[in-house]
Formats: sequence, C-alpha cells, structure tokens
Amino acid sequence: MASEHQPRKGLLIKGDPIAATFQAEVQASLEKLGRKPKLVGILATSSAPSKFYAEFTRKQCERLGVEFILKKTGAAEDEDREEGIKKGEGEGVEEAIIEANEDDSIDGIMVYYPIFGVQQDHYLQQIVSPFKDVEGLNFKFHYNLYHNIRFIQPQSLNQASSTLPVGVEVNTEIPPPGTVKSILPCTPLAIVKCLEHVGVYNKILPYGDRAYGKTITVINRSEVVGRPLAALLANDGARVFSVDIDSIQEYTKRPTTSESAAARRYHPHHVAHPTTLTLEQCLSQSDVVISAVPSEGYKVPTSSLKDGCICVNVSAEKNFQEGVRDKASMYVPAVGKVTIMMLLRNLLRLIEYKAVAPGP
Amino acid sequence: MASEHQPRKGLLIKGDPIAATFQAEVQASLEKLGRKPKLVGILATSSAPSKFYAEFTRKQCERLGVEFILKKTGAAEDEDREEGIKKGEGEGVEEAIIEANEDDSIDGIMVYYPIFGVQQDHYLQQIVSPFKDVEGLNFKFHYNLYHNIRFIQPQSLNQASSTLPVGVEVNTEIPPPGTVKSILPCTPLAIVKCLEHVGVYNKILPYGDRAYGKTITVINRSEVVGRPLAALLANDGARVFSVDIDSIQEYTKRPTTSESAAARRYHPHHVAHPTTLTLEQCLSQSDVVISAVPSEGYKVPTSSLKDGCICVNVSAEKNFQEGVRDKASMYVPAVGKVTIMMLLRNLLRLIEYKAVAPGP
Repeated sequence: MASEHQPRKGLLIKGDPIAATFQAEVQASLEKLGRKPKLVGILATSSAPSKFYAEFTRKQCERLGVEFILKKTGAAEDEDREEGIKKGEGEGVEEAIIEANEDDSIDGIMVYYPIFGVQQDHYLQQIVSPFKDVEGLNFKFHYNLYHNIRFIQPQSLNQASSTLPVGVEVNTEIPPPGTVKSILPCTPLAIVKCLEHVGVYNKILPYGDRAYGKTITVINRSEVVGRPLAALLANDGARVFSVDIDSIQEYTKRPTTSESAAARRYHPHHVAHPTTLTLEQCLSQSDVVISAVPSEGYKVPTSSLKDGCICVNVSAEKNFQEGVRDKASMYVPAVGKVTIMMLLRNLLRLIEYKAVAPGP
Repeated sequence: MASEHQPRKGLLIKGDPIAATFQAEVQASLEKLGRKPKLVGILATSSAPSKFYAEFTRKQCERLGVEFILKKTGAAEDEDREEGIKKGEGEGVEEAIIEANEDDSIDGIMVYYPIFGVQQDHYLQQIVSPFKDVEGLNFKFHYNLYHNIRFIQPQSLNQASSTLPVGVEVNTEIPPPGTVKSILPCTPLAIVKCLEHVGVYNKILPYGDRAYGKTITVINRSEVVGRPLAALLANDGARVFSVDIDSIQEYTKRPTTSESAAARRYHPHHVAHPTTLTLEQCLSQSDVVISAVPSEGYKVPTSSLKDGCICVNVSAEKNFQEGVRDKASMYVPAVGKVTIMMLLRNLLRLIEYKAVAPGP
C-alpha cells in the first residue's frame, strides 16, 4: 500500500485562468468606452525579452480591442535600418516619452525596461506623464501605495502637493465622491490578484484587511516589484518579511513599537522594521513565498519551506527548485499574463482620470 | 644641471579658496534677506561619514548665519537613546521629510544619503518638496538640467506639466522676466564651479558655451553626480566621455548624427552616444579628468593621463594615484567645501522661489 503514502504534488496554478477572470471586466469597460484606447509601447534596446514582451503586449491588446503602437528608438530602431549611423542602447527614449506625453491621441505609455540601469531608468519613469502611466511607476502612485492612500482626486496629479495624503476612507471598495482608485504598479498588483485567486485573501474579513493572519515572505526589495508588493500586502493586514541581498525587514501595519505622532496623523499603513530572523526562519513560518530575483542561479531552498505553503515565482528565471511542489500546496510559476490585464485595467482607469480632470 | 630637468609637481588646488569666493555672495544675500533661513538636516543612519557631514553642515551654517536643525531618526536616533525599542537604519525618514515639507518655518531640507540604497533613496528624493530641495535632487531639476533649461517659472514646480520645456533663452546669464534660475544639484554644480575657478571655462566665449573645445572624462554615471555633471559640461560646450562600469558614452551638444525632429523642437542640449574608445584612449585626450568612484581600490592610472591635464577627485576615497601631480598640471583633491556653499546658494534661491510663487 506504499502508493497511498506517496506524496501528492502541489497544484500548478497557471496565469491564464487568473488573467481570464479579468478579461470580461476589461472587455465590458472597453465596450462602455465606445472607442479604441491607444497604448504606445516604447522599445529602445536590443533586449530579446523586451522585444518578446512588446509583441506579447501587442497580441493581448489586439485580441481585446486596444490599439497598440510600438515606437522603436535607439538600438531597437537600428535593427530595422539597413545603413546610416547607428543609435545606441536607449538613445532617443526620453524624446519618445516626451512626444507621447504631448500627443493628445495617446491614452497610455509603456516603456520596456531595463534600459540604462536602475538609476537612470527611475529618472525616465518620472518623465512619463502620470496621466498616461499605465505601469504605475510614477512616485506619486508609489507614495499613495506606501501610505495606503487608496483613492485620489485625479486633479491632484497636476500638483506637486500630491505628497500630502487626502483624508478619505481606507476600508471601503467604493471610491468616495470626487475620487477614483489610485493606480497601482502592474506587477505587484498582478501578484496580489493571484493571491486573491488562490484564496490567500479572505473575503470574510473586512476590505483593506483581508490578508490579516497571513505570513508572507517577499524575496526582492526593488522599487518596481518587491517593496511596493511588501507594502501592499502589509497594508492589507499581512505580516511580511521583505528579503533583500543584505537585509531582512518586517513590514506590518500592526507594529508593536509605539507609533510616532506623525505616523498617527496619516492613514494606518505599514511600518518597516529590521528583523533578526534568518531567511530560513522566515521561510519556515511563511504561508506564502514570493520570489522575484532576476538571477538564473538563485533558488529558494525547498527544504526550508513550510509544508503546504503557496509559492509564486515572479522572476523570468525559475527561482524555485524542481521539487517545490513536494512542499508547496500551490505553485504559480509566472504572473506575466495577469500583469498585462492589470496594465489594461490601469489604461482604462487613466482614461477615467482624464474625464474627471483633463491633463495639462 | 639635472635639477633643471626635474619635473615640477602640478598645483594642488584645495576647496577652501574656491568656497571662499562664494562666501561674500552668500553673506550679501543673507544680509539682504534680513532673517535667518532655516535648514533642516535629516540623519537617519548610523553612518559615520553622514554624521560627519551633518556636523560639517552645521558648522558652515552657523558660521554664515543660517539656522541649522539636525533631525535624527531611525538608527541615528537610537544612539541617543539609553533604553526602549530601537529603530532601524532609515526608519522614520519618510515621515521626517513629510513633516519638514509641511512646516512653513522650514526653508530647506537636506537628507543624508545613502540610506536604503539607490532605488529607495531615489524615491525619497522625490518626496522632498521641490520648494525645499536644497540638494537639487528632484527629477524636475534634473529634467531642466538634462534639457539645458536654465530658467524656470517657480510656479511650474507646483504642476505636473513641468516636464514641458519653457521657451526661454539659453545663452544669457540674466533670467528673463518672470523666471528665476533653475536649481542645480549641489555636487555637479560644485564641480563646475571648481572648473570655472581653475580656468577650464573660458569667459571670453559666450555664456552657455564656455567649455567649448575642452575634452573631459567623467568617471561615474550615477543620477546624483556623474550623469548630471556630464550633461552640464556638454551643455556648456565640452566634449564629455561618461565612463561607467560597463560602458563609455560620449556627451556632446554638437552631434555629428542628424538630429531628430523632436530634438530640434527643444533647447539645444547634449546628446549621449556610445563610443568605441577605451578608457585609456579617453584619458589620453582629456583636458580634464573627474572621478567619483565610491571605492577604495579604484585608481585612475596616472600613466594614461594627458600631460598637463586637470584632475578632480570627487569621491570620499582617493581615486587618483599618488603620482597624479607628476602628470597633471592641477589636482583638486576634494570638492565638499564648495558643495556646501552651493547648497546654501540653493537655499537662498529657493527662498526667492517662494517669494515669487508660494508653495502649496
């Protein structure tokens, strides 16, 4: 009877069915809009994954009825040119962004990163008009996310004063009058949607606190994926271990330390605090492990995982070992298809912004 | 007669006399203002160099009649506390920035970086109100610098639309009516002032083109020092080699490639283009070599330097070999004292902004 004791593999959860749950919503919004939104993709490098992702965006857009225009510049443009002076990696990308900002016929802009490296790319991310920022990379959107400000007055995007929190409710799904939902960065949002799909978020709990009771490890603390994700999850009630190369921090909105007067003045939101736990200790008590390490060699050790945990791989590389499903109850190998749906949701939301507060 | 042929050492140019040339200007502006400006320094780490720099800022401020308040938070605050729960590196820094943004009695904010690393630090740099950003790290100031927009309407800092160039003259020292000089990041500006002092900028040439004819190598391409510096120098007419770990680019405002329609619409400004030259080849033809590599081991090879060149060390470490003055005609070992003067100039300029366009 040995077969009875044979361990059952954890479920493999692919992105397609999760993405499909948003397709009807996106399609309904598109029909209601009554025109084709126009998304411009800006490709400025010779990177094969970026080219692949651009074609993937095009396919998804065309399938759903969104106009997609790929603007090539720099090294991406060189490849289409037989002769003449070659441009370099990333050359002309800032000009392409500015032109797209100024073109009233364009609803959304997405730029295929990485281009120059984190510092210069971060500068470019701030150049994209917040009214066209489908990826949600403008610091104003990150500010709202970190401070658990869920709704905004779109006209505040026109103002430098957007760094002041607006006094609106947190624990409601319905935006208060005069406000709309704030844009969230695509990839962290897609991961949250995957976690909702696999039941990590508990709908019986109040909105804004549905991850309460869950311990989650997020491996990566970049401004694009790991830190916003850790903050989102902690703002939703989870206890989050944020793991980076040189440190581990705990993110929670239920801090045991006395909150400062300043913190109390704002929305209840996560605080980050260093922890003395090792990665192994974090993993052993985590209900969910999310890894986004852009390195072929990095592997989360299966042996450290808690039995029955949920693992989500966000990296283009496989961050989990072959045997991950021997320990995990569910394994999500990729979130890219969900990310694209979030991008299109953001595009539709930005069109809503423009209707409420026309851009400059 | 061997002594006649003995090589003479290049001049050692210290920061103090260069800083001193700005002291009278700063003092005159302070007297004209008729009140003590208030600068807040935010120290959030246990880093010894940051602590040292904060004390240095205090001394310079007190000497010149600027009120300096050091706000400690996170690990910097822990050290002053005998007992209780310790905070971590950088903890509470964002709240401290927001409080200083909101405090009308505060004229300028400086934050002692590095805190979390380039990505999260870049986010914090965008949180500082542009009206109080004495370090000039807001992306709007960088945008103006990169696009050679020298004057701004201060009220445009209140608007997201500041990414559109204003149509004002470039080649004039006097701001056109309704505009003021745009804030430049402290460290790159201090380096330019050093180069003006040692005669790299030629005052006989028209304003805005006074580095024309000079070839300059800048080693480091961070968003805080190297890239803005390379752009500043190229916008002033120099041919600049921008050297980073994995690539060398040439910055020039006299490109040989045909400019795009988009580029022509904006102010004449530098373009960046990859070069096939090696570092050795760049150094051998450079009139000026500026190095800002934060690494003890990195040394610019003296043997590659052009005879009689000018070398500027911006790093806290010594980036030039012992024998640099055997080749260089002048050597500037540090620019920190000039940087502080630029910071106080920026503080006074921001007070001017507030008078023209009260912040939110």
